[in-house]
Amino acid sequence: MPSTSLCQEEACLPYSLMDDYSEGAHPQILEALLRTNSTQQATYGTDEYSDNARQLIRNKIGCAEDEADIFFVPSGTSANLISIASCLRPYEAVITLESGHIACKEAGAIEATGHKLILVPAVDGKMTPTNLQKAIQQNQFFPHMAKPRLLYISNASETGTVYTKRELSNLSAICKQSNLLLLMDGARIGTALCSVKNDLTLRDIFEMTDIFWIGGTKAGALMGEAIVVKQHLAEGFVFHLKQHGALLAKGRILGVQFMELFKSDLFFTLATHANEMAQKISINLEKLGYRLAADTETNQVFVILPQELVRRLQDRFRFYTWEQLDDGNAVVRFVTSWATDELQIDKFNAWVQQWTAAAK
Amino acid sequence: MPSTSLCQEEACLPYSLMDDYSEGAHPQILEALLRTNSTQQATYGTDEYSDNARQLIRNKIGCAEDEADIFFVPSGTSANLISIASCLRPYEAVITLESGHIACKEAGAIEATGHKLILVPAVDGKMTPTNLQKAIQQNQFFPHMAKPRLLYISNASETGTVYTKRELSNLSAICKQSNLLLLMDGARIGTALCSVKNDLTLRDIFEMTDIFWIGGTKAGALMGEAIVVKQHLAEGFVFHLKQHGALLAKGRILGVQFMELFKSDLFFTLATHANEMAQKISINLEKLGYRLAADTETNQVFVILPQELVRRLQDRFRFYTWEQLDDGNAVVRFVTSWATDELQIDKFNAWVQQWTAAAK
Amino acid sequence: MPSTSLCQEEACLPYSLMDDYSEGAHPQILEALLRTNSTQQATYGTDEYSDNARQLIRNKIGCAEDEADIFFVPSGTSANLISIASCLRPYEAVITLESGHIACKEAGAIEATGHKLILVPAVDGKMTPTNLQKAIQQNQFFPHMAKPRLLYISNASETGTVYTKRELSNLSAICKQSNLLLLMDGARIGTALCSVKNDLTLRDIFEMTDIFWIGGTKAGALMGEAIVVKQHLAEGFVFHLKQHGALLAKGRILGVQFMELFKSDLFFTLATHANEMAQKISINLEKLGYRLAADTETNQVFVILPQELVRRLQDRFRFYTWEQLDDGNAVVRFVTSWATDELQIDKFNAWVQQWTAAAK
Amino acid sequence: MPSTSLCQEEACLPYSLMDDYSEGAHPQILEALLRTNSTQQATYGTDEYSDNARQLIRNKIGCAEDEADIFFVPSGTSANLISIASCLRPYEAVITLESGHIACKEAGAIEATGHKLILVPAVDGKMTPTNLQKAIQQNQFFPHMAKPRLLYISNASETGTVYTKRELSNLSAICKQSNLLLLMDGARIGTALCSVKNDLTLRDIFEMTDIFWIGGTKAGALMGEAIVVKQHLAEGFVFHLKQHGALLAKGRILGVQFMELFKSDLFFTLATHANEMAQKISINLEKLGYRLAADTETNQVFVILPQELVRRLQDRFRFYTWEQLDDGNAVVRFVTSWATDELQIDKFNAWVQQWTAAAK
Repeated sequence: MPSTSLCQEEACLPYSLMDDYSEGAHPQILEALLRTNSTQQATYGTDEYSDNARQLIRNKIGCAEDEADIFFVPSGTSANLISIASCLRPYEAVITLESGHIACKEAGAIEATGHKLILVPAVDGKMTPTNLQKAIQQNQFFPHMAKPRLLYISNASETGTVYTKRELSNLSAICKQSNLLLLMDGARIGTALCSVKNDLTLRDIFEMTDIFWIGGTKAGALMGEAIVVKQHLAEGFVFHLKQHGALLAKGRILGVQFMELFKSDLFFTLATHANEMAQKISINLEKLGYRLAADTETNQVFVILPQELVRRLQDRFRFYTWEQLDDGNAVVRFVTSWATDELQIDKFNAWVQQWTAAAK
Repeated sequence: MPSTSLCQEEACLPYSLMDDYSEGAHPQILEALLRTNSTQQATYGTDEYSDNARQLIRNKIGCAEDEADIFFVPSGTSANLISIASCLRPYEAVITLESGHIACKEAGAIEATGHKLILVPAVDGKMTPTNLQKAIQQNQFFPHMAKPRLLYISNASETGTVYTKRELSNLSAICKQSNLLLLMDGARIGTALCSVKNDLTLRDIFEMTDIFWIGGTKAGALMGEAIVVKQHLAEGFVFHLKQHGALLAKGRILGVQFMELFKSDLFFTLATHANEMAQKISINLEKLGYRLAADTETNQVFVILPQELVRRLQDRFRFYTWEQLDDGNAVVRFVTSWATDELQIDKFNAWVQQWTAAAK
Repeated sequence: MPSTSLCQEEACLPYSLMDDYSEGAHPQILEALLRTNSTQQATYGTDEYSDNARQLIRNKIGCAEDEADIFFVPSGTSANLISIASCLRPYEAVITLESGHIACKEAGAIEATGHKLILVPAVDGKMTPTNLQKAIQQNQFFPHMAKPRLLYISNASETGTVYTKRELSNLSAICKQSNLLLLMDGARIGTALCSVKNDLTLRDIFEMTDIFWIGGTKAGALMGEAIVVKQHLAEGFVFHLKQHGALLAKGRILGVQFMELFKSDLFFTLATHANEMAQKISINLEKLGYRLAADTETNQVFVILPQELVRRLQDRFRFYTWEQLDDGNAVVRFVTSWATDELQIDKFNAWVQQWTAAAK
Repeated sequence: MPSTSLCQEEACLPYSLMDDYSEGAHPQILEALLRTNSTQQATYGTDEYSDNARQLIRNKIGCAEDEADIFFVPSGTSANLISIASCLRPYEAVITLESGHIACKEAGAIEATGHKLILVPAVDGKMTPTNLQKAIQQNQFFPHMAKPRLLYISNASETGTVYTKRELSNLSAICKQSNLLLLMDGARIGTALCSVKNDLTLRDIFEMTDIFWIGGTKAGALMGEAIVVKQHLAEGFVFHLKQHGALLAKGRILGVQFMELFKSDLFFTLATHANEMAQKISINLEKLGYRLAADTETNQVFVILPQELVRRLQDRFRFYTWEQLDDGNAVVRFVTSWATDELQIDKFNAWVQQWTAAAK
């Protein structure tokens, strides 16, 4: 049995809180792949399962078939680069946070499609109306400057915060005024929608954006993201998928997974679990007197810990150190997911509590 | 049970011989995904399964770890565009058959990375030394012409034929002389290697090319292709994967599948089955007096059939009509695969025999 | 005086009939640059001279200011790549002759902007309706094929032939039916319009195409081409110029030259001279019994000559050998221009006549 | 006489201090174009004048023919995008100041070739070693981040300051350590080298950079920039020129102009004049008590003036308002050039002095 010979969980490595994609897929999803495996299906996304998944997602949004088209792609970077390349002309630019995933974690994928990024500083991990308007105003010296044409935001944000209805509505209004399209990266849209701070519905997001995508990879699927495109922008979209290698021959495997996530509320149930696990960590840390570096609104906890605690904790858990601070502390990140084992979180909390008590 | 409600095989559609990716994955592969599902793994292709799969593939090739690097990508178009974009400078061009997959079935994916294609007519679906040399000679008016720098071929070819050792060796020698890299698209390399006409080993291919890839999608995997890159071309390759959205967060799912295909001889067993099914069709058609439009060397049968037979056959089986001929006949294509049900092939053969007898 | 020390015409090299851009500019054009040199002008194409030149060109076309926008660029390759990149979406392709300038003389410039070329064989150097329709039909397997969206033709063609009104009208009609844009490369549009075979007006061309450009470089300017863009395609065009380095800070120098070419009929006078010089060569060669390889309709003469004549002629004149034929003959090309010295043509004709007489 | 009918200097518009490219070319350059106009020359940059100009530039640098290749292009944006695209692989990024010309004045030209820009804040208009190292360190999370591979700087900088030998040497050392290429944009390299603050020679610049270019457009030419490329980076460079439309058929016109600029010291004489005119403005303004917004080291004066003065001055001179300050003042920019009329500068100074006296 290869999995055993390669890695016995307990034996080989400390429990990981590094990210939300260290495990495979939720068992129900694998089961659905098995169940549907032997049927013969049309290819390249025209199979019954993909059609069915599209309809289930439209139902959750509350939109008609002729309001939105939905495309499945294998990765978040695919989703971003295809969405952007599909609706921009060569001289048009994207406004994004400096910390935006496309700005600093996708190896220049957007620029590789020819488009400039205009960088804006984040406030609480988010784009603000003021900063957006400033960026628009500072990029009007035409034709010497690329033309701002699309605002890219992520919900949940890179630091795990969420956009409120009012915040998104304000950004959306500025975009409409300034003739910008609005693209929401939803790699973690599940945890955003299930955040206690959230007051947005999928329908709100659909109305306030032009394109948004629903992340499957971080939400319990093997892989796959569903891009929801307003109908007037959908023409030709499938060519972009093909051209960028994102149109899988067996599109069914993406369809089946999203069908499973959305035929009931599995998608939201899993996101809620991830959020709750993060809350458990966050509440405990605050109770012990540690200061959060960002509000814990979804499944990421950013906290300031003393170096000694970080060092000791690394023997027991894996996680990222986000930033070394000058005062001997560090910002560290703990990420939970649909797969996070509550027993491990309890162990984590207990151990931190114990260490903290001893350290006093 | 969604699969039932959506499609009961017998009830809904005739049996498909349209392509080799209408089904899901071979059961052993799904089982391997299940078995390895819950372990926590490193991400973006650095997991144990991917490492293991790389080693298994290197073993089959018979090459050392420092001779070749191996990268897994989700689709054939990804494999081609990344391989080409990774080793060409902007003004360098690709020589390909007019019928090459990159020339007419990938929506301009190579040109989208900025590279020109130089088109060459096929002979028996293949590139010939004469045609290759002619193309090189006709593209030397520098700097007004893009510089030929890479030869792209597919094995098996688009019409299912295979390159012999002598043929590949001749092309490889010209490439070396002319400072061209050689890339082999191996979407169907399994059936090529298992063809009765084949005299190439994986090691031969490795030595005679600079990059080649091993198709998983058409060989029983859910998706995925393994790109084998000679070490001196591998630097920076992973950036290209990332930039084009082909570096999956859960790279493990590609690793697990290739591990399963190559830990024993499953990859070759499945390809052999596909070839045998095509032989059964092909032999029967020839026996009945129908003329093949291409030699059946792998898992594709191209045959010239009368329109009436084509029409009647379409009620019973699905397949592509490749070309309408002026004489009332048509070239049609039947594709078999690892999943092809031998009973269906027997039914197919029997029915064609019956119709032919009646038609005389 | 550098020009003397570097090259005294007679002393250094045989007279060139290689191309139509071996000399500088027509003296009137240089004089205009001198005359306007010291005024202060707005920059990047917004100067008075460029505005004036635009108006003069519109007048020659017979079109209103709101019907067409006109942009000046430094080179023909710039004109082609910018025109094409400005109106195609990433997955859209260009239909061109195999012998089209963009297909074989621009180092892959179009592909470098991401667009596929679909190649069609030429008949008399030109695109035919039949071949165009065939290309469209063969490129409909979407989304696996790039979508044909623009037809590129050159007038005069690469072999010096011209499109008649009927021919252009037929192509234009197919383009409209098939939702293709039509771009005419006018590097030699002057000689085309002044051909004895021509029955097109600039207004016809404007109406039957979507974008066409008027070549200055080969028509007596130092450099520069004027792109005429139908208004609905002009939005954002200037950004493309800037982005591709074709928006000159001193746009005035292009404006002044086109002003000079079009304020009177200089543009046409010069083209007529070029054509007449080619006629003199062509008529003489035919009279002497040599077979033309293409009709001499503009300023290029393609003729089949015996190798011995070619060799001897090379001591006296410079020209391109286009193709070595198997029978010991060769196709050679003689190009005339606005600058061609009639005395040299007379010498050329006399010498060929003499050689031919002696050879009999 | 068109120039008269279009614009009589005094009559139509106030004297411009907006930029250094509002006039045509220095008379000697036009004269050289006239003098060389009628010779027949080889094309696409292989003419005698271009060869001669290359040799003259190499002589000024003090480098051998096999140390550097030199290419002429029509515009600064061409020079930048070609230099960068020619030596970067697709996933490699450029480090530039936020205020870099490629970052904010070239319409996304670099990104259009596929490359990411990494932005760094300027200090006195310049890149500092500290900021450069920080940018390198912050962009090492591979392969998720594009790989820093080239440092782009301008000398003179966007605010007219110059790099000292020590400053350039420090940056160059970091580049070598970090495997970065160094590209210097020399749109205003003439005024930089003639600055009283300058201690760099052309040879220093050649040694400390990998590619640098010498701006002709702002230095008295009609257009044209000379790119100096270290030999090991020059292979294939000419293809890039062709592919981007920057290889002029009549390359001679660029060669002739640079020959004229460098056969004597015209290039430096003109730059010195520009600098002196800026000094006259700058010294007067400081004497009158106005605060400079940047040191006047070359031909640009950035000064803080009261709004009322700005308004009144606009009736007499044209110039850019760079930034509105909150306190009722504004930063304005005055640019001088080879063509600046000293009488106009005297008038300018006198008028400002008079206004200031009256305003007290």
